[in-house]
Amino acid sequence: MIITIGRQLGSGGRDIGKKLSEAMGLAYYDKEIIDITARESGLSKKLFEEADEQARKGFSAGILGMRFPFLNEGAVGFGGLSNEMLFQIQSDVIRDLASKQSCVFIGRCADYILRDRTDCFSVFICANDEDRIKRILNYSGDKNLSVEKARDLMERVDKKRAAFYNYYSNKMWGNASSYHVCINSSVFGVDGIVSLLKEMAGKNRNPL
Amino acid sequence: MIITIGRQLGSGGRDIGKKLSEAMGLAYYDKEIIDITARESGLSKKLFEEADEQARKGFSAGILGMRFPFLNEGAVGFGGLSNEMLFQIQSDVIRDLASKQSCVFIGRCADYILRDRTDCFSVFICANDEDRIKRILNYSGDKNLSVEKARDLMERVDKKRAAFYNYYSNKMWGNASSYHVCINSSVFGVDGIVSLLKEMAGKNRNPL
Repeated sequence: MIITIGRQLGSGGRDIGKKLSEAMGLAYYDKEIIDITARESGLSKKLFEEADEQARKGFSAGILGMRFPFLNEGAVGFGGLSNEMLFQIQSDVIRDLASKQSCVFIGRCADYILRDRTDCFSVFICANDEDRIKRILNYSGDKNLSVEKARDLMERVDKKRAAFYNYYSNKMWGNASSYHVCINSSVFGVDGIVSLLKEMAGKNRNPL
Repeated sequence: MIITIGRQLGSGGRDIGKKLSEAMGLAYYDKEIIDITARESGLSKKLFEEADEQARKGFSAGILGMRFPFLNEGAVGFGGLSNEMLFQIQSDVIRDLASKQSCVFIGRCADYILRDRTDCFSVFICANDEDRIKRILNYSGDKNLSVEKARDLMERVDKKRAAFYNYYSNKMWGNASSYHVCINSSVFGVDGIVSLLKEMAGKNRNPL
């Protein structure tokens, strides 16, 4: 059983994924994917962090550029790793992890990457702007973060995630028809959604 | 308890609404709203049918134009009923019905019209294109309807419903954050969704 969770920033999607993985005894992969991908590929973690859920098409020479300075000389064509290549490397890691165990994946187009698996349950979590901003402020740890800045961050991250998802998948981020189910955490709460998803995951489901 | 169901054409949203209303003992309003609105307003049913889930901003003199031919002389300004006016009349009927009994409303921006009610549960139903086309062919009763024509109809009706919803509400049709929950009927099936929604409707829910 594979559960993929797309989420708006501040919607509680990560908490829901974490709690659901614990309730169902599934492995949980969010930013952990970056560490694993860096380790497995032998490439710098920084490369994957910079490309994480970004749709930038530019070439990032990154660590290879440091080791082979000529890679930095031109924008294109010197063998730097494009974000597309990093996406492919990460996709292989996601497919590999999914083939070895039941797990929950947060973001990173996992629903699209694993679209051929019939045991994949794909979820999107959204919430009211007001609740999202509260959550962003709570999680930030930055006491100087204003509501305006939190709103700005929320909008920028949504745009980046949408651009990333729409670029790498053939679907639209946050659109009902891209997922098996979309739930609003302002309506049902984090624990309410965990219990609903647990039940849904166990129901008869047809693959898409 | 009020349940509103937005739906893609051919997603089975109407069947789900009908079965859910029967399972929960709720009144059911889909096209029935047009008859009731025509009866209550004393205006022609044809007027409301023509404006049904349409975002056209033009004036439709309609029955008034027939009774008062001068209304047809100019496009604007002769007192014909605009689609906005017809929408307001229909909205009043929806609010009135919702105030008298528990019910299920299909489409017609009912989720937006009833947004101030704390007992409103808003749902969106989508499905795979393949299943939607099959359902459209099944329901059409027209043996000459080709797959291509059904696909064309599906896309046109989606566009019309989206334009209507986006024009009259402050939300985006088919977007996860516009609803409490969105479910794909290709994944869970009509009966599966009826049982899920019945359970969700009974859960603790916060109003949006």
